Amino acid sequence: MRTILIIGAGRSASSLIRYLLHKSATEHLQLIIADLSLELAQNKTLNHPNARAMALDIFDKGQRQNAIQQADLVVSMLPAHLHIEVAKDCLFYNKHMVTASYISDELQALDKEVNAKGLVFMNEIGLDPGIDHMSAMKVIDEIRGKGGKMLLFESFCGGLVAPESDTNLWNYKFTWAPRNVVLAGQGGSAKFLQEGTYKYIPYCNLFRRTEFLEVEGYGRFEAYPNRDSLKYKSVYGLDNVLTLYRGTIRRVGFSKAWNMFVQLGMTDDSYVMEDSETMSYRQYVNSFLPYHPTDSVEIKMRFILKIDQDDIMWEKLEELDLFNDKKIVGLPNATPAQILEKILKDSWTLEPSDKDMIVMYHKFGFELNGNKQQIDSKMVCIGDDQTYTAMAKTVGLPVAIVSLLILNGKVTTPGVQLPIRKEVYEPILKELEDYGVNFNEVLTPYFGYSI
Amino acid sequence: MRTILIIGAGRSASSLIRYLLHKSATEHLQLIIADLSLELAQNKTLNHPNARAMALDIFDKGQRQNAIQQADLVVSMLPAHLHIEVAKDCLFYNKHMVTASYISDELQALDKEVNAKGLVFMNEIGLDPGIDHMSAMKVIDEIRGKGGKMLLFESFCGGLVAPESDTNLWNYKFTWAPRNVVLAGQGGSAKFLQEGTYKYIPYCNLFRRTEFLEVEGYGRFEAYPNRDSLKYKSVYGLDNVLTLYRGTIRRVGFSKAWNMFVQLGMTDDSYVMEDSETMSYRQYVNSFLPYHPTDSVEIKMRFILKIDQDDIMWEKLEELDLFNDKKIVGLPNATPAQILEKILKDSWTLEPSDKDMIVMYHKFGFELNGNKQQIDSKMVCIGDDQTYTAMAKTVGLPVAIVSLLILNGKVTTPGVQLPIRKEVYEPILKELEDYGVNFNEVLTPYFGYSI
Repeated sequence: MRTILIIGAGRSASSLIRYLLHKSATEHLQLIIADLSLELAQNKTLNHPNARAMALDIFDKGQRQNAIQQADLVVSMLPAHLHIEVAKDCLFYNKHMVTASYISDELQALDKEVNAKGLVFMNEIGLDPGIDHMSAMKVIDEIRGKGGKMLLFESFCGGLVAPESDTNLWNYKFTWAPRNVVLAGQGGSAKFLQEGTYKYIPYCNLFRRTEFLEVEGYGRFEAYPNRDSLKYKSVYGLDNVLTLYRGTIRRVGFSKAWNMFVQLGMTDDSYVMEDSETMSYRQYVNSFLPYHPTDSVEIKMRFILKIDQDDIMWEKLEELDLFNDKKIVGLPNATPAQILEKILKDSWTLEPSDKDMIVMYHKFGFELNGNKQQIDSKMVCIGDDQTYTAMAKTVGLPVAIVSLLILNGKVTTPGVQLPIRKEVYEPILKELEDYGVNFNEVLTPYFGYSI
Repeated sequence: MRTILIIGAGRSASSLIRYLLHKSATEHLQLIIADLSLELAQNKTLNHPNARAMALDIFDKGQRQNAIQQADLVVSMLPAHLHIEVAKDCLFYNKHMVTASYISDELQALDKEVNAKGLVFMNEIGLDPGIDHMSAMKVIDEIRGKGGKMLLFESFCGGLVAPESDTNLWNYKFTWAPRNVVLAGQGGSAKFLQEGTYKYIPYCNLFRRTEFLEVEGYGRFEAYPNRDSLKYKSVYGLDNVLTLYRGTIRRVGFSKAWNMFVQLGMTDDSYVMEDSETMSYRQYVNSFLPYHPTDSVEIKMRFILKIDQDDIMWEKLEELDLFNDKKIVGLPNATPAQILEKILKDSWTLEPSDKDMIVMYHKFGFELNGNKQQIDSKMVCIGDDQTYTAMAKTVGLPVAIVSLLILNGKVTTPGVQLPIRKEVYEPILKELEDYGVNFNEVLTPYFGYSI
């Protein structure tokens, strides 16, 4: 028997645990599912004989180390900043480790020691980061293997609501941490590379500089640039590429409407509003508009945002019940962003029968034998229900699959790793196809940066 | 003889030193003018027998303490963050101290000890902060003295170019630290109070939410809100006021044009641009615009900023030579804000014959004997030349006057102070009139918050 300790039994652990339980008999696996909430952990065992639940306070060193000692491999599904203590214990007790989070500087600093002990600490192996790395590196390696030279790499990903559950004017519901959606794009200008020129977009213009994307069978999407487009330039071996752009996918029209909140200052998370607990939604909106003794909040809003009488933007605002003077915020000492999050949750929370959808889109431009060509690679994944969501599947399945590959000695390169090697991405992408995560790759003439 | 040590002999010390030298014979004053640059200090002595220059490195503790021991009162015209070491020495050696800077938390922490020793540490006694405090408190105290109740206080100040030197389309030249002008308004939303309601404006909308101000004989101005409108609410005793607003004055049209830079991201100081040293002004502009193989920088700029063919905004950009592909930035590892500052300095630097202008405007709304009334108080000061600028006069003269008042035992309230007491503002405002700093106060019916 091999024992896998899974720390954190939240939403994104569902598909991960189900996968491992299905394999537990043939693969001789024992799962320990640990969470601060014993009840949550127990629910996730699905009463399977090869799983047991454990209450674990990650800040209790004795408890944590005791749990880790029982495992052969530790999966940490904790919030990213909590991985480091688990990682240090795994290093000390000689355990492999898997996370779906970005590699922090602290974690990277352990690389030498992890390497020396022959351990695999695999990270960034969820959806984004994760499936994006793997599906991109597969095509990039293929192009290079044929002697091609990479010219362009654009990569887009978005967590959305499935078409059958797409019932509001924003074509959006929260399928991921709402707070991160409200704060998206903040903290500095977006930076990317287009046809050899570095380009910069400030936050206040981010949602007005979108691009369109077509996905066959699913229609049109848009994308706004991420802040970190150049992050994997060297990791992917793309130092000489002319175009490098990463973006977030939304349905067309979302960004233009979202920009209304940005312009008014409603996404600001840097200060606390006076009387936030007792203010109405209408008062909240009015806080961002000029004073007038008689003009309505509505006409001031239309004026400031230049919303014509027949503009759909207005209905998008009304749908959120923003002008309601009876609904009270009820959050003490809240920032504008926290209040906006609360208001949006009223409208954008998934119904029990709703399904989510993940869309990923890569463009690879390259030169091969003197010809410029392009490969577009697209993936759409729809959730089964509200437990086995598209998000839970695409985040959790790669984590589960790689855990088994490590235990079975198929993934062996030691150190603090991310999934950019063929030994990792090839078996995982292949197995993901059985779970409905398929990339459709199409070769086309080279379009270059799409204008 | 009484000795005043003046630390820092930069631009804003000119009028301060001239004032004290003029008074030195009758008032028995000896001035020590200390600066890192001995030459600068020597120039400022004007070869006056009662002044001597001294080279002083403020970070050299021995040098600094030696200089301070020689004085009865120390004026620090250093950058604000450097006052604290001087203050600690003044406390130790029992010297009064005067600065034109905001009171830092570190300085405030010395209050008890300064008080116990009977010393006066007078701060915020330049223009803004300084003359704004004094001219406002004078009217507020008068209103209260008659039994009036304050309803509204709005206060505006701006450093501008004098009408006779106002020769560009922006109606603006740098009369103060250019870097501070480029970064103005950044670092969080502006917050103020209008007719009992807190209002917030994010940076990206700050320059589109201006108000107009009329100053007789000087025409029309505009103002955008400062970040800190509520800062002096309690200090001024205005806790129950309905409207509290502080703003920065510019000529009409400046803010709308400045907003173009904000929208493009050119005022961002948070990251370094690639190849900033070798890029042309045109390439700098193009960094903030979408890529296109053939479209010009000009048409992309017009499109993104929605500038019509006959819009004066366009000429404002052209006047700055922004589209020049021959002019090279020449600054290594520069932020967008640093590059913008350099470009603007090409156009906005004062000519040798240019004069500057300070405009200050307060509005006081109050209720007296059941009647609502308003006092508007306005001041315009024009510089004599490029040495005795309006900025140097309005910053330096209050510092000089209060220094003498302290030495003469006319200002005695001990502690870390700012000039809000009648014993301070009354003699200073009176004497400032002799130097052309006059407030014109007009009583009108109450307008309330001006829309």
